[in-house]
Amino acid sequence: MKVIIAIDSFKGSISSIEGSNAIALGVRDVYKNADIITLPLADGGEGTVEALIHATNGKWIEKEVTGPLHKKVSAGYGISGDGKTAMIEVAAACGLPLIPKENLNPLRATTYGVGELIIDAIEKGCRHFIIGLGGSATNDAGVGMLQALGFHFLDSEGKEVEFGGRALHNIVEINLEDVHPLVKDCTFDVACDVTNPLYGENGAAYIYGPQKGATDDMVKALDEGLRHFANKVFEKLNLDIHSSPGAGAAGGLGAAFKGFLNGELQSGVELVLDVIQMEEKLEDVDFVITGEGMLDGQTSMGKAPMGVAQLAEKHQIPVVALAGGVNQEQFKLNERGMTACFSILTSPMTLEKAMDSDRTFNNLRFTTNQLFRLVKASRNN
Amino acid sequence: MKVIIAIDSFKGSISSIEGSNAIALGVRDVYKNADIITLPLADGGEGTVEALIHATNGKWIEKEVTGPLHKKVSAGYGISGDGKTAMIEVAAACGLPLIPKENLNPLRATTYGVGELIIDAIEKGCRHFIIGLGGSATNDAGVGMLQALGFHFLDSEGKEVEFGGRALHNIVEINLEDVHPLVKDCTFDVACDVTNPLYGENGAAYIYGPQKGATDDMVKALDEGLRHFANKVFEKLNLDIHSSPGAGAAGGLGAAFKGFLNGELQSGVELVLDVIQMEEKLEDVDFVITGEGMLDGQTSMGKAPMGVAQLAEKHQIPVVALAGGVNQEQFKLNERGMTACFSILTSPMTLEKAMDSDRTFNNLRFTTNQLFRLVKASRNN
Repeated sequence: MKVIIAIDSFKGSISSIEGSNAIALGVRDVYKNADIITLPLADGGEGTVEALIHATNGKWIEKEVTGPLHKKVSAGYGISGDGKTAMIEVAAACGLPLIPKENLNPLRATTYGVGELIIDAIEKGCRHFIIGLGGSATNDAGVGMLQALGFHFLDSEGKEVEFGGRALHNIVEINLEDVHPLVKDCTFDVACDVTNPLYGENGAAYIYGPQKGATDDMVKALDEGLRHFANKVFEKLNLDIHSSPGAGAAGGLGAAFKGFLNGELQSGVELVLDVIQMEEKLEDVDFVITGEGMLDGQTSMGKAPMGVAQLAEKHQIPVVALAGGVNQEQFKLNERGMTACFSILTSPMTLEKAMDSDRTFNNLRFTTNQLFRLVKASRNN
Repeated sequence: MKVIIAIDSFKGSISSIEGSNAIALGVRDVYKNADIITLPLADGGEGTVEALIHATNGKWIEKEVTGPLHKKVSAGYGISGDGKTAMIEVAAACGLPLIPKENLNPLRATTYGVGELIIDAIEKGCRHFIIGLGGSATNDAGVGMLQALGFHFLDSEGKEVEFGGRALHNIVEINLEDVHPLVKDCTFDVACDVTNPLYGENGAAYIYGPQKGATDDMVKALDEGLRHFANKVFEKLNLDIHSSPGAGAAGGLGAAFKGFLNGELQSGVELVLDVIQMEEKLEDVDFVITGEGMLDGQTSMGKAPMGVAQLAEKHQIPVVALAGGVNQEQFKLNERGMTACFSILTSPMTLEKAMDSDRTFNNLRFTTNQLFRLVKASRNN
């Protein structure tokens, strides 16, 4: 019996790694000598770096960098076991959780710290980057990050523009002379599940500005800044950074990665599954177990467990999903490749009780145990 | 794919028959042409007659008889499709639900109506009886029932004693001359899951008297009446009705069935499984699905689903249990023959919501569907 366990975290209850341990126990309760591969899942959002470090036998790096509001912050990122790939969630250096809600201000917030992390990783030998774009507090089109890499964005007096979205409209010149010489050797795979352009009514400022603290007037100013910047980039470098799907992600960081760093923006789930080499590991596997806190419409919209299901289906391997709750969309999950979905609850209780981590651990183990007892009876071995 | 569905009711939520329909739909969602046998389960208690009528293609009979407090009541019982077997729950004629709580009085309550039902069934051609003993409001040692069958229990003046437990100590003579002539041709299979003797500290009065409304003084009097009666029966008929396990069931009805009617007292579940011919029907079956509202310690103590599991295990057929809740005793169920147990809940909610019958129907169907999708993937067909 060979099983791959690839679950997302059960958010607020149990981590992907602990949950995987519970499931592994449940399998071994039935198939004592089962060959079990644990691949913690992520979707490019929170928890992605942790999952990838686990999957690549990598390590955590802590680095002091410039925070979104210009004060120093300690930011973590991952380097893979082979030392070649750096795994960075931009939120670690410029994320919403770094700023008290009342101080949020995308006119000032910068992505400079993201660039500092990249430089740190380059100097540690990394040339491949996995970037998660979620949760930024910024709207600076990634200019801060590019400044940290050595790009110069100059105003009409030839001076470097200050940090934040409000400075974008002052940029009249772009100078590439001081860009870190190793940046050109780096490849950037960017997890991005949104398709917004850089500016306009579906752009970064209008869609994501308000949740970063922008008032209506600020949104308007930010959007104009992005538009001005895109026009200057086109004028000076002959680069269209506006219209690629995802350019507007993370306050325009999408545009910076794609336009200035030749980054490839792709589905977070696909990127993660690629990095953890899910498909290669499916060979000879009897069952894949996936799951997350809640299997619902969102799940069937392309989150991590569905990505797993689609790969497993392609290789005709049954995939079982476990979740705290399974909602109305359940049949859709089956249609899209999930062999079977189960809630791990064992009795009626409140959501709060259901999320208790010990209970979740026990229920994951028990449900897996019972399912594999049934599998064993069905297979006659 | 051949499946037997044999579930108990999910008490307070869905009947055995409705629940079986939901499960059958869940199986057919996966195995469209599945051969499905539905055998509603019961344990000798409430719902047993209904289940047996279904299993034997029988019919309901309504008959006006003497109620426990001597007023006429309408009581129902079942006759099997072949017309030979009557299925009687004694509670229909002398049960607790027939008396407002404040009027409960085992000194007065009689089992006379039970005898009237037996006579009615004899006259309709039945010679075989399945009797469920649960829930009686009486403590008359079955004397009322025997009186209805023609037995005479006489006091020191040679008069028939009155109804109820308080008359037992007046009995000095027993006369069998007028017993209905066909009683001797009848066999009585009695579902009885208690082992109490007739009297004494583990007897009918001390153990069950209080829940039938007996005060401490009444318990004492009732116990002395039972002891006196047993002594008289031994003296006059050379019959020991006291010490058989179950003699004290249903206020001594156990003793009456065993001693006077040659009844066989046996486990309710085994009796029901026997009547519904579960074992004979297991041939060529791929899966048995059983279940009830709550799978717990009580279940592993010998209730209906465990009886099913033990028969299925004997024939090496996998048996899956579905329940609203599965508790700590879950692993014990596996040890005792249950292949796998699952709660049908799909998300955290209150017990009240979980017991909603539409939700239970949908969850039974969904869980069965998902399980059989897994079975199909495991079997490769």
